[in-house]
Amino acid sequence: MQNFEYYNPTRIYFGTGEIAKLENAVPKDKRVLIIYGGGSIKNNGVYDEVLSALSNHDTHDFSGIEPNPEYETCMKAVKYIQANNIDFVVAVGGGSVIDATKFIVAAAYFEGEPWDILTKGAEIKKALPFGCVLTLPATGSEMNINSVISRREFNKKLPFANEKVFPQFSILDPETTYTLPSRQVANGVVDAFVHVIEQYLTYPQDAPLQDRFAEGILQTLIEEGEKVLAKPDDYNVRANIMWCATLALNTLISKGVKSDWATHMIGHELTAIFGLDHAQTLAIILPSVMNYKRDKKAKKLSQYAERVWQADKNLSQDEKIDFAIAKTRQFFETMGNHTYLKAYDIDQSKLPLVLENLQDNNMVSLGEHQDITLEDSQKIIEMSYDH
Amino acid sequence: MQNFEYYNPTRIYFGTGEIAKLENAVPKDKRVLIIYGGGSIKNNGVYDEVLSALSNHDTHDFSGIEPNPEYETCMKAVKYIQANNIDFVVAVGGGSVIDATKFIVAAAYFEGEPWDILTKGAEIKKALPFGCVLTLPATGSEMNINSVISRREFNKKLPFANEKVFPQFSILDPETTYTLPSRQVANGVVDAFVHVIEQYLTYPQDAPLQDRFAEGILQTLIEEGEKVLAKPDDYNVRANIMWCATLALNTLISKGVKSDWATHMIGHELTAIFGLDHAQTLAIILPSVMNYKRDKKAKKLSQYAERVWQADKNLSQDEKIDFAIAKTRQFFETMGNHTYLKAYDIDQSKLPLVLENLQDNNMVSLGEHQDITLEDSQKIIEMSYDH
Repeated sequence: MQNFEYYNPTRIYFGTGEIAKLENAVPKDKRVLIIYGGGSIKNNGVYDEVLSALSNHDTHDFSGIEPNPEYETCMKAVKYIQANNIDFVVAVGGGSVIDATKFIVAAAYFEGEPWDILTKGAEIKKALPFGCVLTLPATGSEMNINSVISRREFNKKLPFANEKVFPQFSILDPETTYTLPSRQVANGVVDAFVHVIEQYLTYPQDAPLQDRFAEGILQTLIEEGEKVLAKPDDYNVRANIMWCATLALNTLISKGVKSDWATHMIGHELTAIFGLDHAQTLAIILPSVMNYKRDKKAKKLSQYAERVWQADKNLSQDEKIDFAIAKTRQFFETMGNHTYLKAYDIDQSKLPLVLENLQDNNMVSLGEHQDITLEDSQKIIEMSYDH
Repeated sequence: MQNFEYYNPTRIYFGTGEIAKLENAVPKDKRVLIIYGGGSIKNNGVYDEVLSALSNHDTHDFSGIEPNPEYETCMKAVKYIQANNIDFVVAVGGGSVIDATKFIVAAAYFEGEPWDILTKGAEIKKALPFGCVLTLPATGSEMNINSVISRREFNKKLPFANEKVFPQFSILDPETTYTLPSRQVANGVVDAFVHVIEQYLTYPQDAPLQDRFAEGILQTLIEEGEKVLAKPDDYNVRANIMWCATLALNTLISKGVKSDWATHMIGHELTAIFGLDHAQTLAIILPSVMNYKRDKKAKKLSQYAERVWQADKNLSQDEKIDFAIAKTRQFFETMGNHTYLKAYDIDQSKLPLVLENLQDNNMVSLGEHQDITLEDSQKIIEMSYDH
């Protein structure tokens, strides 16, 4: 096991009715900006619950955060915060709203051009405190320091991470997810699943507990993911998926081990170029990464096949790997995601743009061994186009 | 799944050489009290590592914390802190030293009789900040808010828990455990194992992820526990046990589910009356609790038998339960712990004192259903005396 530092001070309020806890979770003397996306929280009652809990607070509104949140939109929120002396933010939504909020609270106090936070890793000295009301389990953003911001004018989708943007608290009420479109629910399951895979499916690292925690999340997502499509109103199924998605990326399972993240890095560029959902890109790229790196990942792929998919122990290693990849594709397809680019009518002639973006963003040595070069990424993308 | 709140802000520094991080983890302007137990940290080099990391700090010493830390000893440390204007504490040791430190940092600012913290749940308004250097993986105290303090003059061993006594940080260097006596290593494995069982082995609660995390810790402790006796100098084995013991009781696996803790409550009184090691009492009581509550725990016992001990799925439920109990006893015995009181030459005529203590401490409705009465505890203790 490698040395590590683990720190996660986000307080989680989990369960039905917990949105009411906002009243005491947000200090009474704060000027509060509620940041959200489109109007879905106004239709499903969540917005009213939030306002009701904050009825004794001075609240302000900022809406319009997009999926794959846009830099320009974030900067409008920053201006609103500065003009109105906002000193606490509540993000109400899914990963996009929370990611945007992280950037906004960091940019609000930033001296200089906040774009440098994303492109140059500029130091964040101070950030506004914020909490979350999660309505879409998927990205884990509610309990980590990560954020990804897009800037369409430049075809860019860039990450940053900083301890100063830990949510102070996150409220996870599984009932807020009942009204999600099934595509978003399924995408969330796939997203969380691939987050775990990126941290787990590497090579044996003498860290058996991290392996078993990862396998436990994967198994639970498979079982509950299939159930949620059949029984969308089952509270416990919703609750289990929500808790899985948070623990998939609150950094616990990655401690002491090297992670991969190649699928995400390539996937981000597919979203930037073609506008595919984040989960769609993961479902397409991951099986190809598994196949392309099947030799270096062989031991972990076999373990994954046996423990997560109950592969027959008597199969050969290659058979186990083929079985694991086939089961993974089948699971993604059950969750409504295609596993080849062609299914989304992608213009094949534009694939080189993905490579250009990877190069521009210096994504030239990906994976747990940093041995996935641009040429390798090209092959992975080609394998991902069609059967 | 039940509603829950999860919060754990302790920063973990994990790995070889991490004790050097003390230098920056403790604010430079603090007057620091180093609290420890006997002389073992002076013999194995840990004390020197701590002093070296804190060479630019104003440090003071308080030694002599006992196993099952004693109230009177803690109060001596409180007096030292008050007399010397100590404003930061570093606990160096195992669960006893850390538990003692939690009580000491709470008592240091307490107005009135600190014994009331333990007997009356008196409010703790403020506590000194502290960090830990863990040298004995077992109790999980390094990443939670729990503490158990003994007062031998009254035959009492009482717990308290308060968010104000979260360690600010804990340093976990597996190499500090190389010089532990094998009995303490084995006891630590048993202790962590039973911590997990108390949170897991109840009844199905629609919380599959919590189950799989618990099973993952149990399986890892079984595998690594057997290895550590054979290969005491294997760094990864030590590291895996250390991380398991912390995660066994940092409260994560108990979130959203009801826990048992009957074995611990009865075990504490066996330590108070007979002076048995904490782990020894758990290894004795747990198999009897499993057997006595085999009907109400049947589903979880079967799941435990299948998933943790690979019981044949074709066995009957009763056979699976017998198998699980036998495997548990066998594991404890492999780890050097007897599973019957008689093996420790306990005076059988004194067993009623255990019941008296349970009654005095109001431990009259134990277990996840709070249905273990004093009469039930009496039967469990009788079953635990001999085959």
